[in-house]
Amino acid sequence: MGNSVKISVVKNILEANQRIAEENRRRFAEKQLLVINLMSSPGAGKTSLLERTIRSLKDEWRIGVVEGDIQSTYDAERISQTGAPVVQINTGGACHLDSNMIQEALRNLEIERLDLLFIENVGNLVCPAEFNLGEDFKAMILSVAEGDDKPLKYPLMFHESTVLLINKIDLLPFCDCNLDLIEERALKINPRLNIFRVSCRTGEGLDRWGDWLKQQIRQRKKKGSES
Amino acid sequence: MGNSVKISVVKNILEANQRIAEENRRRFAEKQLLVINLMSSPGAGKTSLLERTIRSLKDEWRIGVVEGDIQSTYDAERISQTGAPVVQINTGGACHLDSNMIQEALRNLEIERLDLLFIENVGNLVCPAEFNLGEDFKAMILSVAEGDDKPLKYPLMFHESTVLLINKIDLLPFCDCNLDLIEERALKINPRLNIFRVSCRTGEGLDRWGDWLKQQIRQRKKKGSES
Repeated sequence: MGNSVKISVVKNILEANQRIAEENRRRFAEKQLLVINLMSSPGAGKTSLLERTIRSLKDEWRIGVVEGDIQSTYDAERISQTGAPVVQINTGGACHLDSNMIQEALRNLEIERLDLLFIENVGNLVCPAEFNLGEDFKAMILSVAEGDDKPLKYPLMFHESTVLLINKIDLLPFCDCNLDLIEERALKINPRLNIFRVSCRTGEGLDRWGDWLKQQIRQRKKKGSES
Repeated sequence: MGNSVKISVVKNILEANQRIAEENRRRFAEKQLLVINLMSSPGAGKTSLLERTIRSLKDEWRIGVVEGDIQSTYDAERISQTGAPVVQINTGGACHLDSNMIQEALRNLEIERLDLLFIENVGNLVCPAEFNLGEDFKAMILSVAEGDDKPLKYPLMFHESTVLLINKIDLLPFCDCNLDLIEERALKINPRLNIFRVSCRTGEGLDRWGDWLKQQIRQRKKKGSES
């Protein structure tokens, strides 16, 4: 098989993904729904962040979750403990979510009854960054235990994200990780990044993230009602 | 594009990879070289493990490294500080190494002058597990900061690996992570796993890993000279 065939197939896959992502985006906009695609390495704290965020915002806003996993329903079960509606996608080996999987998942979610939808992507700092799902923005989590060299080595994820949550800052005294260096390196790749230093274990820093999120929900509704 | 086309392309890619992996494997066997494909999530400690392992074994054995990264030569520079010969592969976006990249890298490495070759894969707990490189075995690292649910969620990597290094055990008092549960879940997927509990920061547990590795190098040479 020649290289040209491979390349055109990849191009077709990305184009098909983008087309369906635009359909998703129009559907979300109609409902004035804020949609966040949450990405990170395995174990950086995506599900813990969602648990904390849902519990803190759920009296004020209606939040739903699409859970992406290669296998298992472990995270979806954790999320459903919060009372939020959750739909599980098992990718069956695939290393990222794509827009078509989201379209399928939406059949099982009443999005007109939601203000905010989180899509928790497969734990992977590489592939998910290439696939738009129709989200308003991408948010990524980096755990301080992963070290401060990650922006240098996985730049696309930092480039595509609107938000960088630096998690597990309670571990800082025990890790060789320089927070300022992470921020400097990340902002060099993407100067528009909104950065939050948080600990999903202790709760530190999550108020600021919650406030920012509420503001985004309100702006989304305002934008929706004007258009 | 129909699903059948997509599937046949993936099949072709994996078959081509396997063919070249077998070529690599024959070449490694001729030289009686032990080759280990090292995989993990980003920031679990692959490069730190290599630094420690090389420094501890280098007086006795000749060790080389192929460094796989999407971008940057950061890890290769760290490895070259140990004095070991190192060849950098930049995948230019790709989320895993393949056997063809290894074949290219070998042009720049005198493998007849080595006893042990480490291939440090791209930081990714998903895709690298699907691509044989011609290695003798795959070793994976899991950081305790990633949590004890990883075998449930990323089973293929655990299934394909011969070795599981559970790293950063110095962080255990500060993480909600149960080591016994990791081992139980990992062994359920793969009962033949050799498991080492280590800290690349403090050095704890690395002696046992080093001893095991020396035994593997000796066995590889024995096998090579008998065939």
